[in-house]
Amino acid sequence: MFQDFESPPLDATAWTTSRISQLRKILLRRSIDAYVVPRADAHQGEYVAACDARLSWLTGFTGSAGTAVIGRSRSALIVDGRYTLQARSQVAQSGIEVVDIAPHALDDWLASTCQSGAVVGVDPRLMPLAQAERLNAALSRFGFKLRAVERNLVDMVWGKARPQEPDGAITVQPENVSGQSAEDKIRQLQDTLRSDGDDACLLTLPDSICWLLNIRGRDVSHTPIVRCFAVVPKRGKIELFLYRDRPGQRIDAATRSHISKHARLRQVSELRDHLKLLKSRDARVRVDPTTAGWWCARQLGNRNLHRADDPCQQPKAIKNPVEIAGTRAAHLRDGAAMARFLAWLDRETEGGSVDEIAAARQLEEFRRETGALEDVSFDTISGAGPNGAIVHYRVTEATNRKLGKGELYLVDSGGQYRDGTTDITRTVAVGRPTKDMRRNFTLVLQGHIAISTARFPKGTRGLDLDPLARVALWNHGLDYGHGTGHGVGSFLSVHEGPQSISRRGHHVLEPGMIISNEPGYYKEGAYGIRIENLVLVRPFEPVSGGDREMASFEVLTLAPIDTRLVDLAVLTDDERTWLNAYHARVLKEIGPLVDRATRAWLKSACAAI
Amino acid sequence: MFQDFESPPLDATAWTTSRISQLRKILLRRSIDAYVVPRADAHQGEYVAACDARLSWLTGFTGSAGTAVIGRSRSALIVDGRYTLQARSQVAQSGIEVVDIAPHALDDWLASTCQSGAVVGVDPRLMPLAQAERLNAALSRFGFKLRAVERNLVDMVWGKARPQEPDGAITVQPENVSGQSAEDKIRQLQDTLRSDGDDACLLTLPDSICWLLNIRGRDVSHTPIVRCFAVVPKRGKIELFLYRDRPGQRIDAATRSHISKHARLRQVSELRDHLKLLKSRDARVRVDPTTAGWWCARQLGNRNLHRADDPCQQPKAIKNPVEIAGTRAAHLRDGAAMARFLAWLDRETEGGSVDEIAAARQLEEFRRETGALEDVSFDTISGAGPNGAIVHYRVTEATNRKLGKGELYLVDSGGQYRDGTTDITRTVAVGRPTKDMRRNFTLVLQGHIAISTARFPKGTRGLDLDPLARVALWNHGLDYGHGTGHGVGSFLSVHEGPQSISRRGHHVLEPGMIISNEPGYYKEGAYGIRIENLVLVRPFEPVSGGDREMASFEVLTLAPIDTRLVDLAVLTDDERTWLNAYHARVLKEIGPLVDRATRAWLKSACAAI
Repeated sequence: MFQDFESPPLDATAWTTSRISQLRKILLRRSIDAYVVPRADAHQGEYVAACDARLSWLTGFTGSAGTAVIGRSRSALIVDGRYTLQARSQVAQSGIEVVDIAPHALDDWLASTCQSGAVVGVDPRLMPLAQAERLNAALSRFGFKLRAVERNLVDMVWGKARPQEPDGAITVQPENVSGQSAEDKIRQLQDTLRSDGDDACLLTLPDSICWLLNIRGRDVSHTPIVRCFAVVPKRGKIELFLYRDRPGQRIDAATRSHISKHARLRQVSELRDHLKLLKSRDARVRVDPTTAGWWCARQLGNRNLHRADDPCQQPKAIKNPVEIAGTRAAHLRDGAAMARFLAWLDRETEGGSVDEIAAARQLEEFRRETGALEDVSFDTISGAGPNGAIVHYRVTEATNRKLGKGELYLVDSGGQYRDGTTDITRTVAVGRPTKDMRRNFTLVLQGHIAISTARFPKGTRGLDLDPLARVALWNHGLDYGHGTGHGVGSFLSVHEGPQSISRRGHHVLEPGMIISNEPGYYKEGAYGIRIENLVLVRPFEPVSGGDREMASFEVLTLAPIDTRLVDLAVLTDDERTWLNAYHARVLKEIGPLVDRATRAWLKSACAAI
Repeated sequence: MFQDFESPPLDATAWTTSRISQLRKILLRRSIDAYVVPRADAHQGEYVAACDARLSWLTGFTGSAGTAVIGRSRSALIVDGRYTLQARSQVAQSGIEVVDIAPHALDDWLASTCQSGAVVGVDPRLMPLAQAERLNAALSRFGFKLRAVERNLVDMVWGKARPQEPDGAITVQPENVSGQSAEDKIRQLQDTLRSDGDDACLLTLPDSICWLLNIRGRDVSHTPIVRCFAVVPKRGKIELFLYRDRPGQRIDAATRSHISKHARLRQVSELRDHLKLLKSRDARVRVDPTTAGWWCARQLGNRNLHRADDPCQQPKAIKNPVEIAGTRAAHLRDGAAMARFLAWLDRETEGGSVDEIAAARQLEEFRRETGALEDVSFDTISGAGPNGAIVHYRVTEATNRKLGKGELYLVDSGGQYRDGTTDITRTVAVGRPTKDMRRNFTLVLQGHIAISTARFPKGTRGLDLDPLARVALWNHGLDYGHGTGHGVGSFLSVHEGPQSISRRGHHVLEPGMIISNEPGYYKEGAYGIRIENLVLVRPFEPVSGGDREMASFEVLTLAPIDTRLVDLAVLTDDERTWLNAYHARVLKEIGPLVDRATRAWLKSACAAI
């Protein structure tokens, strides 16, 4: 299994208390009044390696986002709304206060607990430059000082027990799936650097570097990246900084030969000297202040820092024809596994013996049986009844729940395949749904269809489309508290920027981008609804009778949407036509890929309504 | 008439050449390499007084937006797309280059014409602080220096011929139309200043000051403002700086007594000393850098400047119950005038003798006959056939056109009444419209209805609603190149911030705001379509069957939408229901206010389809 369902310890008081008190002794010794412990590693990814799981090791809090701040006598854990309850149950016994996230939550908490002149420490590797600058400015208003503490203090307490840096195999993403040679990508990047007057560019996001060099790794769960840094000079070879490199173990000869064509292999421990060298040469270095660590900027100095976004983000987001063909193939494969799963679910829930963990296991099993699954793309969200209303629910032994009759079951999952990353959510009726469930499912479906069928002109940003997914819900006094869609990588992160369909989706949508379409509705304590397909932005094309070229979406995900939950009185004729056409396509494309029993089920699931 | 239809001089070569060469002599004498002449006055309003019309006096360009830059040997006029053609015909003969507006158009033009070390002059009163800072930073990259030239150099050339400062009567906007006493408004503003730690606030926007003091004026066309500045201290009386004040002429005893309760009357010439006094006292002064002139900030110094938005903008935008009742009354009155006009138009175009100017005159006449018209709220856009496709068309003797059979006629107009400001656009079929006209009119109507019927949650910004007005057009490969809606004042500016429904409408919509709903479609060289009503944001209210409170719009404007242009095959049932309900309301509310002939016409114009 690529995922486990272990319950996090509900009360880690004993060991967190001891760890925090050891940390406090260090603070005292070093005259630090409070120490900030972010959840992130130096690469700001969604998943961290075991050796970087400092926040959970120190506090017991296992959520995927949060910041602890340990003061001399008080400490706090700042989390967003989805983690408030979990954080309380995991850390409250250790005396850590749980604080709701807000633009100034950290500054305000420090202001209320520290005296003027206080020193606030942080590991400058773990905090992006822009965040450190903002925090520093905010703290200076209270007379506090933000100190970059070079050696990580949590690691000092952790000592020898801290896990080793991961050193999973690094592999080449061959050109028949990447669609563009590393040479080409590097040349384009170096052209940009030269025309912008930069001498070099520092890359700190592993998925940018993996994309650029056409390599993949196994350093963290669910995202096939290599944790590393890279410096791309305006001409010549890249310097690639890996955490460990034992030849013959981590990197085989073929991979080494591929990388060596483009990059010199170095150790992360050599990064400091290399950055200092760039500084001493007065090199103008492009750095993304929102993702690159404060530490990097400190080595480079402020004078020649060219602040700009990570230059790989935009070209990585725009998939080339080979990547597009790959994602289509991955979605056919994944769709077949989903069809088997949904058919299995319908059969098994008849008997009433399926629970959330069993369902998640079975789904992963069907994906594995494709023979192409490299990992799941994230921990499956498998939520029955009220658990479905928890947007980022992760099922554990402690929360596991039978899929009961008359309930809705929400399953959000995806696969990592060499040729593409998938992400799909379906909401299924177990037994007979209520009128309320059907109406609300249909409203969510209307939003989903509005995005699927949207045409839009050049310059349209994700935020321009977000409301289209909400109008039907708004009209009935409903809404959902998350964005409508996120970018998706090509055998990379399932959550990839820069584009999104959300309130903050300021990035313009371009042909070739892959993005999710996942409106929802959540009735707390009762049920959750979400319908998610991935879509691809099609090229701008003339529209008959029109005078402006418009882009539109190609739906990539192929799996039935539960028609038992559709209220035909709510749906318009056009929406009904769309749904029937989608199902006809699913049957036509997925039908030939599945066993006879599944095909029979699929035929009925895809029947026109 | 509140408007004229004079043709601007097509070629003003003779006098502009002489004026520009006089200006160049001054530049030479003062060692200035280029001088920037903005269109704006010191108050950044849409209309300027004759004495502030420096741009048109110097260059001959009469558009409402643009910036000239006069160099030692070359000069340019930077305008946006809607004025490119007009600018070319008005200034090209004088050797002024017409440059399309772009984020860096001014800097780039200067960079291409000036040498390093060049001095670029500007009247610091006429350029807002933020713009001056941006320009200064941009120019410094080329080694240029931006110099604040205290005495306006155009005025030096203009000399005695420059018109006097306007001194129209100032009147009180009584509480039975303003709905809140000046005392109350000032108290609230002073509370804000104190709680923000400000000692005072500088106001430079006349409509903010007029709102705050419940006064109105006649200093510029179409917007009933008094050109003035004000300094509001955190406690005590306001200092009000007027350009001229001849007692007994401009301000009658009652108005003087009203103002004197809240403010000390001063001359604009005294403003400098007052700002310097604030500086010498180390007062922290709130200033809106996007609207307050650079000059003001220079007097105050940077140290204690509190940069924040104009604090009157938000409370002014949220209309109180008396203002809301007033705007409803104004719209009934204006709707009756519109009904008379549209009925007249249908009768007269039968004979084929109406032209654009005659129509605009007649519409103003019907508004005047209400007995309550204080001004039109802007120059009427009266465009037949291809003229309707020019978004900001202003009809003149030179462009005047008959309303021909088989054409569309677009009329965008409004009235200033004591109790409210109106703004309405209707597009009318003259003779038999084509299939293409009807389809496109119906698509625009669908967008108009989508806004009219929208429900939306707390926190919704104008930009979240803008796409709803475009979806139907986008779907057919069409769009329009302007925003969907702007804020509207209460007997103040017809274009009022901070809210808007547009791509840049970042401001959250709040109950009580009035905003226009005016999607359109323009077929260059053929016809223009726009359908505009004003709407009021209603309070957030529960929706039956929902769990979140939603706001919605009350339609304020009451005039028939031409059903001869509606293609029923395009409209959905719900949209048809909305249109019929709207027309039933128009007939019910406007019918009793008009003569028998108009009522008969209205009955047929409002018949259900």
